[in-house]
Amino acid sequence: MGSVYGNIFKISTFGESHGRAVGVVIDGCPAGIEIDESFIQSELDRRRPGQSKITTQRQEDDKIEIVSGVFEGKSTGTPICMLVWNQDQRSKDYSHIAEKFRPSHADYTYAEKYGNRDYRGGGRSSARETLARVAAGAVAKKALSQYGISIQAYVSQVGKIKLETPYQELNLEETESNIIRCPEPNLAMKMIEYIDQVRKDCDTVGGVVSCVIQNTPVGLGEPVFDKLHAELGKAMLSINAVKGFEYGSGFDGIAMLGSQHNDEFYINDNKVRTKTNHSGGIQGGISNGEDIYFRVAFKPVATIMKDQNSIDAKGNTTTVSGKGRHDPCVVPRAVPIVEAMAALVILDFMLLARTNKA
Amino acid sequence: MGSVYGNIFKISTFGESHGRAVGVVIDGCPAGIEIDESFIQSELDRRRPGQSKITTQRQEDDKIEIVSGVFEGKSTGTPICMLVWNQDQRSKDYSHIAEKFRPSHADYTYAEKYGNRDYRGGGRSSARETLARVAAGAVAKKALSQYGISIQAYVSQVGKIKLETPYQELNLEETESNIIRCPEPNLAMKMIEYIDQVRKDCDTVGGVVSCVIQNTPVGLGEPVFDKLHAELGKAMLSINAVKGFEYGSGFDGIAMLGSQHNDEFYINDNKVRTKTNHSGGIQGGISNGEDIYFRVAFKPVATIMKDQNSIDAKGNTTTVSGKGRHDPCVVPRAVPIVEAMAALVILDFMLLARTNKA
Amino acid sequence: MGSVYGNIFKISTFGESHGRAVGVVIDGCPAGIEIDESFIQSELDRRRPGQSKITTQRQEDDKIEIVSGVFEGKSTGTPICMLVWNQDQRSKDYSHIAEKFRPSHADYTYAEKYGNRDYRGGGRSSARETLARVAAGAVAKKALSQYGISIQAYVSQVGKIKLETPYQELNLEETESNIIRCPEPNLAMKMIEYIDQVRKDCDTVGGVVSCVIQNTPVGLGEPVFDKLHAELGKAMLSINAVKGFEYGSGFDGIAMLGSQHNDEFYINDNKVRTKTNHSGGIQGGISNGEDIYFRVAFKPVATIMKDQNSIDAKGNTTTVSGKGRHDPCVVPRAVPIVEAMAALVILDFMLLARTNKA
Amino acid sequence: MGSVYGNIFKISTFGESHGRAVGVVIDGCPAGIEIDESFIQSELDRRRPGQSKITTQRQEDDKIEIVSGVFEGKSTGTPICMLVWNQDQRSKDYSHIAEKFRPSHADYTYAEKYGNRDYRGGGRSSARETLARVAAGAVAKKALSQYGISIQAYVSQVGKIKLETPYQELNLEETESNIIRCPEPNLAMKMIEYIDQVRKDCDTVGGVVSCVIQNTPVGLGEPVFDKLHAELGKAMLSINAVKGFEYGSGFDGIAMLGSQHNDEFYINDNKVRTKTNHSGGIQGGISNGEDIYFRVAFKPVATIMKDQNSIDAKGNTTTVSGKGRHDPCVVPRAVPIVEAMAALVILDFMLLARTNKA
Repeated sequence: MGSVYGNIFKISTFGESHGRAVGVVIDGCPAGIEIDESFIQSELDRRRPGQSKITTQRQEDDKIEIVSGVFEGKSTGTPICMLVWNQDQRSKDYSHIAEKFRPSHADYTYAEKYGNRDYRGGGRSSARETLARVAAGAVAKKALSQYGISIQAYVSQVGKIKLETPYQELNLEETESNIIRCPEPNLAMKMIEYIDQVRKDCDTVGGVVSCVIQNTPVGLGEPVFDKLHAELGKAMLSINAVKGFEYGSGFDGIAMLGSQHNDEFYINDNKVRTKTNHSGGIQGGISNGEDIYFRVAFKPVATIMKDQNSIDAKGNTTTVSGKGRHDPCVVPRAVPIVEAMAALVILDFMLLARTNKA
Repeated sequence: MGSVYGNIFKISTFGESHGRAVGVVIDGCPAGIEIDESFIQSELDRRRPGQSKITTQRQEDDKIEIVSGVFEGKSTGTPICMLVWNQDQRSKDYSHIAEKFRPSHADYTYAEKYGNRDYRGGGRSSARETLARVAAGAVAKKALSQYGISIQAYVSQVGKIKLETPYQELNLEETESNIIRCPEPNLAMKMIEYIDQVRKDCDTVGGVVSCVIQNTPVGLGEPVFDKLHAELGKAMLSINAVKGFEYGSGFDGIAMLGSQHNDEFYINDNKVRTKTNHSGGIQGGISNGEDIYFRVAFKPVATIMKDQNSIDAKGNTTTVSGKGRHDPCVVPRAVPIVEAMAALVILDFMLLARTNKA
Repeated sequence: MGSVYGNIFKISTFGESHGRAVGVVIDGCPAGIEIDESFIQSELDRRRPGQSKITTQRQEDDKIEIVSGVFEGKSTGTPICMLVWNQDQRSKDYSHIAEKFRPSHADYTYAEKYGNRDYRGGGRSSARETLARVAAGAVAKKALSQYGISIQAYVSQVGKIKLETPYQELNLEETESNIIRCPEPNLAMKMIEYIDQVRKDCDTVGGVVSCVIQNTPVGLGEPVFDKLHAELGKAMLSINAVKGFEYGSGFDGIAMLGSQHNDEFYINDNKVRTKTNHSGGIQGGISNGEDIYFRVAFKPVATIMKDQNSIDAKGNTTTVSGKGRHDPCVVPRAVPIVEAMAALVILDFMLLARTNKA
Repeated sequence: MGSVYGNIFKISTFGESHGRAVGVVIDGCPAGIEIDESFIQSELDRRRPGQSKITTQRQEDDKIEIVSGVFEGKSTGTPICMLVWNQDQRSKDYSHIAEKFRPSHADYTYAEKYGNRDYRGGGRSSARETLARVAAGAVAKKALSQYGISIQAYVSQVGKIKLETPYQELNLEETESNIIRCPEPNLAMKMIEYIDQVRKDCDTVGGVVSCVIQNTPVGLGEPVFDKLHAELGKAMLSINAVKGFEYGSGFDGIAMLGSQHNDEFYINDNKVRTKTNHSGGIQGGISNGEDIYFRVAFKPVATIMKDQNSIDAKGNTTTVSGKGRHDPCVVPRAVPIVEAMAALVILDFMLLARTNKA
């Protein structure tokens, strides 16, 4: 259970870090969506390991292969299977931890839950699974772009280095201009330097990815349980290493008064608008047409290049030594993952919203 | 869509603020659970309006009525319907806002999404719906208590007044000893005074509810999408007025290094334990047997007793004036709601976990 | 599990034969559907016990009560709860079978599955549950009638008395003109006489309900698993006492040759039509615009007024003696139930079909 | 929508007749199930085209490839992806029908529903999709065999040639001894001769597959909608070319009296048994421990080697001429498909049943 996501646009992901392949089946993709393999590949490239000095140095092509559901360049309404064959497996890198439980990894919980465990590179619990999300998300993003909807994520914090500028004052086109994916170039440089230092210290650090969704219609989200922000929250929290989610005013809204926090309605160009947007584009769990924005907190990567005390499967005390090639900070590669999950949520709600009225 | 929640222990809630009743149908409740009407009622009483000077002064009994699924005091495995009849309807209180869109309420989004709208007291978007969750959650809580699992929420912040003490150093039995439901009595008093002042100022303020779940078995949560914290996050974010969710180290974990953040495994009393618990009891989306803890951010209540500018359904500028009896701060009444939603998530995962092994 | 049905138009039924009430919550009903209480009641009246000499003589009003989801006569898009309070409970009638397993009833299987059992009148396994389906189906039927779709069921067989005339040659308006609900008056009379004789013999007999759905658009059904006829089949088989389902040529189609069975396409009035309709309006699991028709087999009612050998919960041999007031043949009251389930399936697929194209 | 099936043991199939591959992802397979590739292959071989003179002469290896979810020969509890690459594609065989709607095929309905269509060999509507079901079903069958449950299907009718012997008097081990898969050798020979004659006449014919499930525990099935026979019915009706389903006494039970049809309970060897089994092993939608048996009706294959009148996508009259290599009768190859779908249903209910009691 747990590897199927979505109501109408429903994805089923499969594959382990060091298995044969990682992939996804999309059931419920509307027919007639342009399926642009090069766009899907470009999204995967944004997530790809080895893309810069501040990501893992593993080199994997992550070449997408479309197996079904597409005919003459368009979706046919039948299941779309896409997969990436694993190349750089190096299973021996992991033999040293086959019996050990790495601290703050999923080794112990998987072993207990399932009774057995594919220990190679974390198996199914590896963040490599997220490439399947990015591939499916690329299809969703393309569909959404046909409706004029854009989804843009960026890094807004690394360790204590925080981008305080609100997104409205940023040029989000700058995001891809640097390897940390922060649209403020000076801060980006500081973040990069900091991560580089942390890496040299054989350590890791956390960060925040912010995301802005623009041009959504009014009416997305299905209260009372499937509120738009509840589903966005679940989607983000399901990404590896995520520890928190907030939208609109978020945790900072706590200390505001209602009279400060409320977003006043007015009419502009015959459109209903709000003067402020503490609601983050969502009221009562339903999009109100304003920009949707949210922040996602990522913890420091659990694999560090230092020795750590731990235990093995037999309960013996042992030492875990980080080996292999890992990310010192997950956020630059998390940017396309956040966008992908957001696209899946928004498209699914777009399709559901078609059923709201007689 | 959107009013059904859960995989096995599945609830379907119904009812509007000023309709005839609010209730819930639970499908998939295991047979043989003791259904204790007085316990369900006591949980509803914790959520009830009019319970103290810092909550709304509306007086409603919220008397639970069990309609089906129970025989000789126990669940039979068939659907349990429970409902509360609405008594204090006062529909006329709302006639003044029938055509107006109240700022930061769901009036506009519901009207657009559905094309029509039950404007009486917010209709379905009213937090009155949460009593159905509390009733279902009480059944789940009772079931969990049979397995020794406890769920305890408390208020940890109101405006800027923040309880910094970690939960381990608090006496959570104190939570119910004061009307704000903060287990630290001195801080509780400050919070109460502050809310009282805000209320006199015809304003509202936000807060945080923290929650601790103890004695869960290892193995709850279904990666990769239905991770335990992802589902807890969705459940919490689906509660009215929630703007953020974090678990374990949460947003504060961002600035930590991996070497500080990782939770070292050791053996204690033949049990696998971790020395710290930045993971919040969840690793790889699966419970690891340590305490699960999380924080839920609530915004200031949107209904304030001040005049606000807004528009009506025809797009005309208008003024909205708060009337009726509303909460100046939602958190004291949110405590049992947070617990209820947590209980629904945990019990559902307990049942799913029975299917994990051959 | 198992009391929730549908994808978008999703119903959750509750209640036992001798509990407090039987009812349903509809989640996902589109907003703006006219909710006509008198029509819902009239459908319930067609299912009501005591309506004629060939049905059970239990007298129950089965008065529908709408609890939520309707405002100013229309659905609001929020959950619609409807229920019927049980009046004629006579629990004592059932004390004699509290510990006995009635042959071909659900007594034994419920007791084993759940470990306890509400033995009063069959509890949840009673066909009384179907009134919830009829109420929900009435809402769906009304919605479908707005799109011009009609659903008409009728009795086509009782014991060996079989209506051989194809539905196209029948006047289906005649169905409600007699108490057996067979549109061929002479045959209807024979069926009624036969049932009356069976009843006097303290026995019961089975029958067939046929159903015709007209004016559906092309495109309903979601292959490969949720084919239109697969879902219709499940819906019908889920009705109490049903033993078989066939559509179009059904079991008789087996012995045909492909060259006889294939439905030739042609154009009529600029519409794609087929010359024959062995396909029963469904090709590849998707409606093709022709009439959908199917047949549902009902077994003889298990409760007979004769003594039968059986065992009790302790494994002792015992005798079960039919008491109370029961149907000698279920089909006349099954007609509205078959229509209701068909309406639920068709409306759900109508809503899903809105998501098929970009 | 529609290509995902199951509640816990959930499969998602993908692939078209002439696309790159056909496959399946199983989510929710319990960990620790032996995954026996050779057994899966042997099941596929039973379904394989070209296996005898009475099946299509297309030659395809249908070699299974396991992509994920298996480690050291056992399921790990994570998604199992399996696929078969298409080899014998011959797309040009189909160019002649690219614009034509073949009678009683899914060409027209797919084209209308989705607006575009992969016309090569029927695309997604081809029965080639069922190999994914057989692969997933083989995993389920293996799991069930660990619990001692057996599932055996066989051909019981071809055209008018009908096997009247009840299954109890047959030696089901004989089923695989002949190419029609009928356990009565003399009748098998007649069926084979008849099909051979039909094939020479360039025509096709229908048939029936019967199925017996033995050694199931009491308690499978989830009333009121997910009754065991309702889900079996849906599963069977979702197979290509199926027109009807009946279980236990089925359509023949209609004409019986209740006093004849009821299955008397008695105790044998300390087990609750019934003297007859008109119930087909299912009472109230729940297995009662007796043998489950049912019959599935298949129509004659729509592709015949004769010219037929039809229309094309522009509405012009045209002639469709059967080409390529097709089955004259689908039932011998349908036997493993029926077994596979039954295995999926039974295993899913086995897992769900673990959640029935506290």
